[in-house]
Amino acid sequence: MRLTTYTDYALRTLMYLAVNRERMVTIQDIADLHGISKNHLTKVVHQLGQLGLVETVRGRNGGIKLGHEPAEINIGKVVRQTETDFHMAECFDSDNTSCAYASACALKDALGAATTAYLKVLDDVTLENLLRKRGGRTGNGGVIKPLRFHAQAKTKK
Amino acid sequence: MRLTTYTDYALRTLMYLAVNRERMVTIQDIADLHGISKNHLTKVVHQLGQLGLVETVRGRNGGIKLGHEPAEINIGKVVRQTETDFHMAECFDSDNTSCAYASACALKDALGAATTAYLKVLDDVTLENLLRKRGGRTGNGGVIKPLRFHAQAKTKK
Repeated sequence: MRLTTYTDYALRTLMYLAVNRERMVTIQDIADLHGISKNHLTKVVHQLGQLGLVETVRGRNGGIKLGHEPAEINIGKVVRQTETDFHMAECFDSDNTSCAYASACALKDALGAATTAYLKVLDDVTLENLLRKRGGRTGNGGVIKPLRFHAQAKTKK
Repeated sequence: MRLTTYTDYALRTLMYLAVNRERMVTIQDIADLHGISKNHLTKVVHQLGQLGLVETVRGRNGGIKLGHEPAEINIGKVVRQTETDFHMAECFDSDNTSCAYASACALKDALGAATTAYLKVLDDVTLENLLRKRGGRTGNGGVIKPLRFHAQAKTKK
């Protein structure tokens, strides 16, 4: 059981933008920092733009920035929008024909209730919450320091 | 976000055995009914055997049967044992080196809490609960009728 890479990248993009709010960011910055595909990330940022979570500023000094304050961005909502497949087992598929128990089985209900509980936890988390970790080694009261591409870039393995 | 096919097969195997307790079942029966790989299913049944959830009876009239009463088989426990990957995002991986926020980010905590909530729901569900669905078209008080391979076999697509 794992979130898709797509959702993982979406959350990391939002975090990067949240800690770099004083400047414009490029998709290349985020791709380089995490050593991930720029093409893949471009699709993620495009959707985040459609959702209003990311704003694009055109022009020579343009780039992308957060569309809302971190405290206003709900992680449960983000995950619901980026994670398209909450079909926990084959019985969730609308074209499922291979499960012989479908009409009487309560597995779908049980897994559905479990998924609801999962998302409910994330509904209480905002992007701002993700940036503050007690005991985090940030040295500034638990708030992540702005990340600079040049200082922290990692090479792709 | 989806459970693995492995867990899906494990749950279906347990359900099949639960509704066919009056007879010995073969792995081939279950594979044929669901149109799934016998080899894959053999691995699943082997693990279920190791967990004591399935018993193997050797000999000419042998086969497999449930190791416990359905009411004693906890679905949360089964899923914890068959679903090996609860690493919701890259930051869960012990060899993770590519996330620049690792030391101060609370994403792992949030996703971990959500996963705990997910499993907690399944901890309240037994195999017997899965066999009783209100309004299920079973015609016998909501309990799934024993499934017979010959009567309900489906061909593999």
